[in-house]
Amino acid sequence: MRVINFNAGPAGLPLPALERARDEFLDFQGSGMSVMEHSHRGNEYDAVHTEAIALLTELLGIPGSHEVLFLTGGASQQFAQVPMNFLPAGASADYLMTGVWSEKALEEAKLVGIARIAADTRDADGRYRRVPREEELQLDPSAAYVHLTTNNTIYGTQWHQVPDTRGVPLVADMSSDFLGRPLDVKHFSFIYAGAQKNLGPSGVLVAVADRAFVRRGRQDIPKIFRYATASENNSLYNTPPTFAIYLVRNVLAWMKSVGGLKQIQAWNAEKSALLYGAIDRASGFYRAPVARDSRSDMNVVFQLPSEALDDRFVSAAKQAGMVGLKGHRSAGGIRVSLYNAVTVSQVKTLVSFMETFAREHG
Amino acid sequence: MRVINFNAGPAGLPLPALERARDEFLDFQGSGMSVMEHSHRGNEYDAVHTEAIALLTELLGIPGSHEVLFLTGGASQQFAQVPMNFLPAGASADYLMTGVWSEKALEEAKLVGIARIAADTRDADGRYRRVPREEELQLDPSAAYVHLTTNNTIYGTQWHQVPDTRGVPLVADMSSDFLGRPLDVKHFSFIYAGAQKNLGPSGVLVAVADRAFVRRGRQDIPKIFRYATASENNSLYNTPPTFAIYLVRNVLAWMKSVGGLKQIQAWNAEKSALLYGAIDRASGFYRAPVARDSRSDMNVVFQLPSEALDDRFVSAAKQAGMVGLKGHRSAGGIRVSLYNAVTVSQVKTLVSFMETFAREHG
Repeated sequence: MRVINFNAGPAGLPLPALERARDEFLDFQGSGMSVMEHSHRGNEYDAVHTEAIALLTELLGIPGSHEVLFLTGGASQQFAQVPMNFLPAGASADYLMTGVWSEKALEEAKLVGIARIAADTRDADGRYRRVPREEELQLDPSAAYVHLTTNNTIYGTQWHQVPDTRGVPLVADMSSDFLGRPLDVKHFSFIYAGAQKNLGPSGVLVAVADRAFVRRGRQDIPKIFRYATASENNSLYNTPPTFAIYLVRNVLAWMKSVGGLKQIQAWNAEKSALLYGAIDRASGFYRAPVARDSRSDMNVVFQLPSEALDDRFVSAAKQAGMVGLKGHRSAGGIRVSLYNAVTVSQVKTLVSFMETFAREHG
Repeated sequence: MRVINFNAGPAGLPLPALERARDEFLDFQGSGMSVMEHSHRGNEYDAVHTEAIALLTELLGIPGSHEVLFLTGGASQQFAQVPMNFLPAGASADYLMTGVWSEKALEEAKLVGIARIAADTRDADGRYRRVPREEELQLDPSAAYVHLTTNNTIYGTQWHQVPDTRGVPLVADMSSDFLGRPLDVKHFSFIYAGAQKNLGPSGVLVAVADRAFVRRGRQDIPKIFRYATASENNSLYNTPPTFAIYLVRNVLAWMKSVGGLKQIQAWNAEKSALLYGAIDRASGFYRAPVARDSRSDMNVVFQLPSEALDDRFVSAAKQAGMVGLKGHRSAGGIRVSLYNAVTVSQVKTLVSFMETFAREHG
């Protein structure tokens, strides 16, 4: 029996994508071996790799100016690799601070070159409850790039508009909302996203990159860390994480089969509306700390009247077959991650549980 | 029907390790989700992670001075990360050149600091047919480290003795023979190995590191690239490739169940003796270019009298259910990879095929 999985990442994956992998786990398409036992230079894996790129290009409507790259090391490695590639000696990059992951990205950039804070919504207690407004951005027009985190898993905030950087290249960590909604790729010079939320298992990262921007990257860093190396070798410079990319392919094929990003966005909007609605209707019992216009559709955070009740909520939900609801250790409370594999019906089950729980403990 | 898989990597994996993964793919130990859908901070994954480290420690007899790390980016990333960590400004590192992978390691090191060639067995035609002899090593006693590649997948050579570096820390890329034989870990300051040969799928790299050596590594590089970061966080600083590590755990459990590294070594010795025996008995037809004392037990390379016969051999073998025999594009000929998942009986099938083929085409 599969449980209802609200994990923040690694997260639940669509069952059809997993079943497909399970069914051909020992014998991929009659080839007599698992897809993970195939050479990354062979025809069988090549077809998977090519299809994954084609599906992503189609789903996002990626223009010819941009390309898909498969990388490793997660977003945490890109925190360092982005400035290694795009921050020349003497130049400066702008960072928009909206949570723990922005902070980590800034720290790594500072070890590579000059990085400045161009906006910061951190409250006096160290928490973040909203993303910056356009007029709060203090952008340096000569910055090498502007970096932002589109969705903040820990504090449950999300950018709902792409900020206007006035021609400065925009680099975005989209790990936790990539493919949760349609996206106008051309606003971004470099998008990166760890797979383990909406796309697949941990162990692979997807980038959508402006080809010209990547080619202008620094050449004086190790070859393996140049994004141009992945670009010039179709992400096959060295052995890629083939099975992880295969699973991403399965997830993308599932996304296409259900109607693509418009349908995914509609479901995600319905899911978050159901959940925020339940919180707001019981606002004396469930408190949502995030400003309304910064609320994330992917990670919904709230608190109960006491930590003891938070704990009780988590364990009662587990009894009812729902897991992954404990808030991040640095934020506390409850966190419900509503990634693409979570269904509307599962959210209705949670909402109904929340209503009963509030009545019984309110 | 599973084929006989002689792929050079990604390579065949032991069937019991794969079946175990397949059987619990959708529901890991009754938890109601796949192991890849579990949080990397949860108890279920933690038990897998801990068991993988414990099994590797037991199989190799890793002393308390050393520790196991799970990293990403493959050996190609370590070519850069090793000098970033262990090559201080102004210092120099010694590289022992035995093939394509040593060359790539040297190239990356040169982009980070000063790297010199301390031995080179490259022939005038650009190929390598043996590893250096002890007396050929021109070691710098003040080098920050000595780097070698223990097994050379492309040219089919292997070090059969650990060179004496007279106290200079030894760093070894063991990607293609790690866990193919017992190993005295204490001779090495840093061992690294991509999983996709003897250990698991591509997408995870295992390091066995001297704790003190790692702690002395450079601190002025991005945090994610410091081996000390992985060391201090039990390889959980950021989300690791959980499913790949889980598969490594399954493979290690299989290795233990069949008798550990002594048994594995015995099988590998038997397999390579069978195959080199067949080549040597038909030495007018099958030519092995590698010097006898440098022959690899993991990757056996040989040529037939013509390229046309090489191709015919590969396709006839495929007809007979044996795949992965084509030599690397830079070396040509035939390559038979005899990683741990290849059985003695499968090698006997190949030998019998080779004898027939030589009779029919010799």
